[in-house]
Amino acid sequence: MRAVDIIIKKRDGLRLTAGEIRFFIENYTAGRIPDEQASALAMAIFFRGMDYEETAAMTLAMAESGKQVDLSSIRGVKVDKHSTGGIGDKTTLVVGPVTAACGIPVAKMSGRALGFTGGTIDKLESIPGFNTSVAISDMVEQVNRIGLCVAGQTEELAPADKKLYALRDITGTVDSIPLIAASIMSKKIAAGADAIVLDVKYGSGAFMKTKEDAQKLADTMCGIGNTVGRKTLAVLNSMEEPLGNCVGNSVEVAEAIEVLKGGGPADLVSHCVELSANMISLGLGMDFAAAEKLAAEKLSDGSALGKFAEMVEAQGGDPEVCADPERVLGKGAFSRWICAEKDGVIQKVDAYRTGMAAFTLGAGRAVKTDPADPHAGVILIAKSGSVVKKGDRLCLLLSDSPVRDEAVGFIKEAFVFGGGNE
Amino acid sequence: MRAVDIIIKKRDGLRLTAGEIRFFIENYTAGRIPDEQASALAMAIFFRGMDYEETAAMTLAMAESGKQVDLSSIRGVKVDKHSTGGIGDKTTLVVGPVTAACGIPVAKMSGRALGFTGGTIDKLESIPGFNTSVAISDMVEQVNRIGLCVAGQTEELAPADKKLYALRDITGTVDSIPLIAASIMSKKIAAGADAIVLDVKYGSGAFMKTKEDAQKLADTMCGIGNTVGRKTLAVLNSMEEPLGNCVGNSVEVAEAIEVLKGGGPADLVSHCVELSANMISLGLGMDFAAAEKLAAEKLSDGSALGKFAEMVEAQGGDPEVCADPERVLGKGAFSRWICAEKDGVIQKVDAYRTGMAAFTLGAGRAVKTDPADPHAGVILIAKSGSVVKKGDRLCLLLSDSPVRDEAVGFIKEAFVFGGGNE
Repeated sequence: MRAVDIIIKKRDGLRLTAGEIRFFIENYTAGRIPDEQASALAMAIFFRGMDYEETAAMTLAMAESGKQVDLSSIRGVKVDKHSTGGIGDKTTLVVGPVTAACGIPVAKMSGRALGFTGGTIDKLESIPGFNTSVAISDMVEQVNRIGLCVAGQTEELAPADKKLYALRDITGTVDSIPLIAASIMSKKIAAGADAIVLDVKYGSGAFMKTKEDAQKLADTMCGIGNTVGRKTLAVLNSMEEPLGNCVGNSVEVAEAIEVLKGGGPADLVSHCVELSANMISLGLGMDFAAAEKLAAEKLSDGSALGKFAEMVEAQGGDPEVCADPERVLGKGAFSRWICAEKDGVIQKVDAYRTGMAAFTLGAGRAVKTDPADPHAGVILIAKSGSVVKKGDRLCLLLSDSPVRDEAVGFIKEAFVFGGGNE
Repeated sequence: MRAVDIIIKKRDGLRLTAGEIRFFIENYTAGRIPDEQASALAMAIFFRGMDYEETAAMTLAMAESGKQVDLSSIRGVKVDKHSTGGIGDKTTLVVGPVTAACGIPVAKMSGRALGFTGGTIDKLESIPGFNTSVAISDMVEQVNRIGLCVAGQTEELAPADKKLYALRDITGTVDSIPLIAASIMSKKIAAGADAIVLDVKYGSGAFMKTKEDAQKLADTMCGIGNTVGRKTLAVLNSMEEPLGNCVGNSVEVAEAIEVLKGGGPADLVSHCVELSANMISLGLGMDFAAAEKLAAEKLSDGSALGKFAEMVEAQGGDPEVCADPERVLGKGAFSRWICAEKDGVIQKVDAYRTGMAAFTLGAGRAVKTDPADPHAGVILIAKSGSVVKKGDRLCLLLSDSPVRDEAVGFIKEAFVFGGGNE
């Protein structure tokens, strides 16, 4: 078998066999197939696509390219959750505790993704003392003890995906639904859960710009998961506006705690309940309506908050964060209010531009080695539907460094006004 | 400007500017753009194509990536010729001398191509003593003195093409007409001729399998040449059967000499006259019919043979080769006659299979560092239209090593019989 023949076969629109895909992925990971052949194959896949079976074969080959987490010593159906990423997406901090509070073991590995804001791991690390570098054996022990652990993804998970993703990033081959699906699912499968709930976003602040593409990605990922024996469900959600009112790292933790206390913005609460209910229905084999009711109860009765506090304590964080988030999390040394320059009704707060503002304030990272500013972010006061008068506060910008005009520019553009007087 | 943005632009079907193409080629040649980005761009070009202007821009950028031969001190319109490669294609050995005999300076650089048989350079090197490593200054001097020089292509010519071709070869991106056209034309342009005649082959023994693709390639190359100010003409020719009767290295030199003496097989003679006439009409501004007549005269009056002898002598070869080719060229230590196993009419001698037989006998090379056997090859006795009886000789296989059964298998399959008794 020669790599070039596999490339040509895909280039010419033929189906690759599982054996060919495994040969390519294994040899690429081992360095026996060079980057230039892998990028040519990726570009051929961009144009020709892959069917479910090809995509599942690639996913499995990537999942099996490194360490695979063995969660078999955790009792019960382990349910994982993955979001394709959005602006203000702090759902893991809520749905993990809610699901765990229902008695479903949650052993979740999260990323420190590049992007507008930090990943879940960066958000958790804004809690003083919180440790996200947890050995797998410690994770298993913690989940067996308290039912919940959220840790950084080990470097040994799906190395083929890591290598291929870095390659795709510089070769214009990121935007391929089968490759995106295989990348996400290889890590989820290697992470060992029995069932997976996917939160697939679309719109201005999401990677998928249209609902149609999000649906295709969701279908592909569910196809892979179910093909390889992991029950997989997907939920589609619009990301035209940020989720909730807070975008950043510590500000998102504070908002998640608000939700865990039974409060928080309606859009965030309802999305968290929807995701939790899907996880619960997979974990307990319960129908969706009953799972939804149970999820809402865990938020209102304080048991989800209790799970969150247990996890924070177990991972070395300051458990006082639940009682007094603002004090424990601290705040940015610099802040700036953005006020309405005219009367009107807010038609939309654009997610992408809000994300760019948060990024410019320092909440995210452009390259892997950049640190994320724990305190940088945006707190929205007005969202779509808000009626504002000239001079009213629209949002607060926070940062550990002086607020840059660029961030102000982005956030001003994010607010789309309709009607009202100039 | 970022390489990845150029890849994405082409991937998405947009036109690249000359500046973008130059940026990519220059930085790729200099090693600042890595192979994985170049192969991704090549694959995107495979799918999206390039228009004439893009292809011309890529050709010029590649031509200018290394040394450019300056033939300005040679008097007259310098005419070059290029064949896309076929089985038994020894035309350079005939048309160079014919054209030079008409007073048109021919300073030709040829390749030592991979393939079924050696390139023109390997064929010439089967003449004892013949030197193909000629410095450009010596080439200019020789052409000014005798009107003709055929030398090996300098390593410094179009290094971008050399690098890109090696990359395309392993990444499934060879079969792209704009990339093939740019590759060929970049070398021709860097080689300094004022006018170029292209011999584009199609069929079983050619790189282009269909006449339509050959026409597209011809049009693209003529478009490039004329866009950059080199008068370019193309001739299309079928390569279903080998050209002439001899396929190999020394056997092809002997056959070329036969043509230069006014003999030789009709298909080869007429093709050489057609190519020469195109070169003459470009070089002397003569109409095609008159040029054709002149070319035929140079073969019949011995003046083309005289030019060939002058060149052989000037480049250190044994000039006796013209008087007694068989003795000077020597012959393979091993030979084997292939005879008809039934009566019939030969419908076709398949070019590809004949080429594979010659290759298996040792005439070509699989990798650059392989030596080509000067004596290996096939001499066809029967060609399409030949009426043969069982036991009649069809061809002779020659080699410096024992004749392999594989070669016999290929050549037997090459002969397609029609009619006759089993």
